[in-house]
Amino acid sequence: MKTLWLENNQLQLCTDIPIPTPPPGEALIRVLRAGICNTDLELLRGYYPYKGIPGHEFVGIVEKGSPHLLGKRVVGEINAVCGKCRFCLKGESTHCENRTVLGIVNRNGAFAEYLTLPETNLHLVPDNVSTDVATFTEPLAAALEIQQQVKITASEKVLVVGDGKLGQLVAQTLALTGCDLLVIGRHPEKLANLEERGIEIGFSDGIIDRSFDIAVECTGNPEGFALALRALRPRGILVLKSTYSGKLTIDASALVVDEITLIGSRCGPFAPALELLRTQQVNVSPLIQARYPIAEGLTAFSHAKQRGVLKVLLDMIEEG
Amino acid sequence: MKTLWLENNQLQLCTDIPIPTPPPGEALIRVLRAGICNTDLELLRGYYPYKGIPGHEFVGIVEKGSPHLLGKRVVGEINAVCGKCRFCLKGESTHCENRTVLGIVNRNGAFAEYLTLPETNLHLVPDNVSTDVATFTEPLAAALEIQQQVKITASEKVLVVGDGKLGQLVAQTLALTGCDLLVIGRHPEKLANLEERGIEIGFSDGIIDRSFDIAVECTGNPEGFALALRALRPRGILVLKSTYSGKLTIDASALVVDEITLIGSRCGPFAPALELLRTQQVNVSPLIQARYPIAEGLTAFSHAKQRGVLKVLLDMIEEG
Ligand SMILES: [Zn+2]
Ligand SMILES: [Zn+2]
Ligand SMILES: [Zn+2]
Ligand SMILES: [Zn+2]
Repeated sequence: MKTLWLENNQLQLCTDIPIPTPPPGEALIRVLRAGICNTDLELLRGYYPYKGIPGHEFVGIVEKGSPHLLGKRVVGEINAVCGKCRFCLKGESTHCENRTVLGIVNRNGAFAEYLTLPETNLHLVPDNVSTDVATFTEPLAAALEIQQQVKITASEKVLVVGDGKLGQLVAQTLALTGCDLLVIGRHPEKLANLEERGIEIGFSDGIIDRSFDIAVECTGNPEGFALALRALRPRGILVLKSTYSGKLTIDASALVVDEITLIGSRCGPFAPALELLRTQQVNVSPLIQARYPIAEGLTAFSHAKQRGVLKVLLDMIEEG
Repeated sequence: MKTLWLENNQLQLCTDIPIPTPPPGEALIRVLRAGICNTDLELLRGYYPYKGIPGHEFVGIVEKGSPHLLGKRVVGEINAVCGKCRFCLKGESTHCENRTVLGIVNRNGAFAEYLTLPETNLHLVPDNVSTDVATFTEPLAAALEIQQQVKITASEKVLVVGDGKLGQLVAQTLALTGCDLLVIGRHPEKLANLEERGIEIGFSDGIIDRSFDIAVECTGNPEGFALALRALRPRGILVLKSTYSGKLTIDASALVVDEITLIGSRCGPFAPALELLRTQQVNVSPLIQARYPIAEGLTAFSHAKQRGVLKVLLDMIEEG
């Protein structure tokens, strides 16, 4: 089958990898569409020593599996877990100590014509959600994870730093809480997406006082982190939502003196993400900037790497 | 009066500073004893550009003030606050945006024969608590702040990194929660203090697995921080209790992937600290390693700076 293959920080197109055989409990999924995420770009830069097929945001059709799934459009949670370790047993299975992660840790991912995943990871895509839109389920779930970790209500003043792919989804989900929200970024056209939805926007070089209860860092760069920290009131909460490929140097004294809480945030819940898409409470379509067939996957990555580009999709359907 | 004076990272003994006149609402306190804290040593190293009399851990006798305080032994909360700002109004007055801080920010401190503080900052020392012991009220309150920020019960596995002044107090207060506690340090004789109280101890070079729910960093050095981070389970909490004079470089990816929470922790509640001393639930006496008259304050600081030294006290009572 056609796939992208990552090895030694090099991405290549392969055509000789066989269609996988699903082990017991797993389904064989024909991938329809997949999204390129910042994590994929960081993997390329060596964020994590991964060798295999990358890609973890996808929509596919079950070709082998249980009858209730067969032939259905599905999305899939990316952590394949053991169900037995202390984290699985206490319901924190995204932290399973024996997990593989689709396209990230020891499990071939979605930039391929086929993938396999445990059937328990799969969620049916509602009929009224298009395949393009459903591709955003995974990053939208990740955005919702913030609200699993920090209670956000209408009385909180919240800053989102970054107007990229992640910042856009985070901002839209936070806006639904009714909180006093400000999103700052560097790209007028991206901020306009949010402004159209009634979200207050600003530019990164504006003056931010120490008044926010919560700041969500979605840029993945040290400047974004510093800005988020400066914006917080004492006892504020800084949510670190981005993948960082390097080390981050922080002013620990500021954290201590102002009793700041810093929270790392990763994968989130799929069911509420799909529900937001089904009920059109978030709008992901403006985030799609380009679409390439898998055969042009390397070009797709080059495009996705460009500064300021939002979501680039890969189309897996064989032409002709 | 005799004082220590800090200016341009230089400490000197002064005898020509006049006894202060308390402004309205403040009491004049004759200092009996004061403790040298790591924050004082960091101030000397330039952690914060402070000019004036340092010292914030003290016991004194009220010489001018309201009748209910006059002649009484007191300890004092170190943040002198405005009572009007948004933080004061929501009960977070240790973060008052107009605060001065005894011996730390714009307010002469306790390494002097006299100081002034708002009467509302003062707490009477119970009769059965000696002056030496009461000098630990402020750092003990700071140790208790952890439990204001993080709920710690018998079901949590907690690591304290550091067996110094702060680590000793933190460990003793955490032990009272009944949590599964381990303290690691580098000094057998200091760890022995804790072992005698039934607290489990270990050495910093031992193997620490990713199993702790909560880790409290009390060393103030990057190695301590890294060790605390490594010891945490996914979704664990790292409490940053130390003063850091420099920047701290952290592995932000580890924070995100493991969804770690990092919490800065500073000043804490005096009343429960005094109650622990009154009921002898903590034992601070073994922490006292030396005592000097104020006239030998510079020697006292040299002693306090030595590696592995616990609490050095300054005695303010004029001889003869
Ligand atoms: Zn992703
Ligand atoms: Zn597991
Ligand atoms: Zn102190
Ligand atoms: Zn105030």
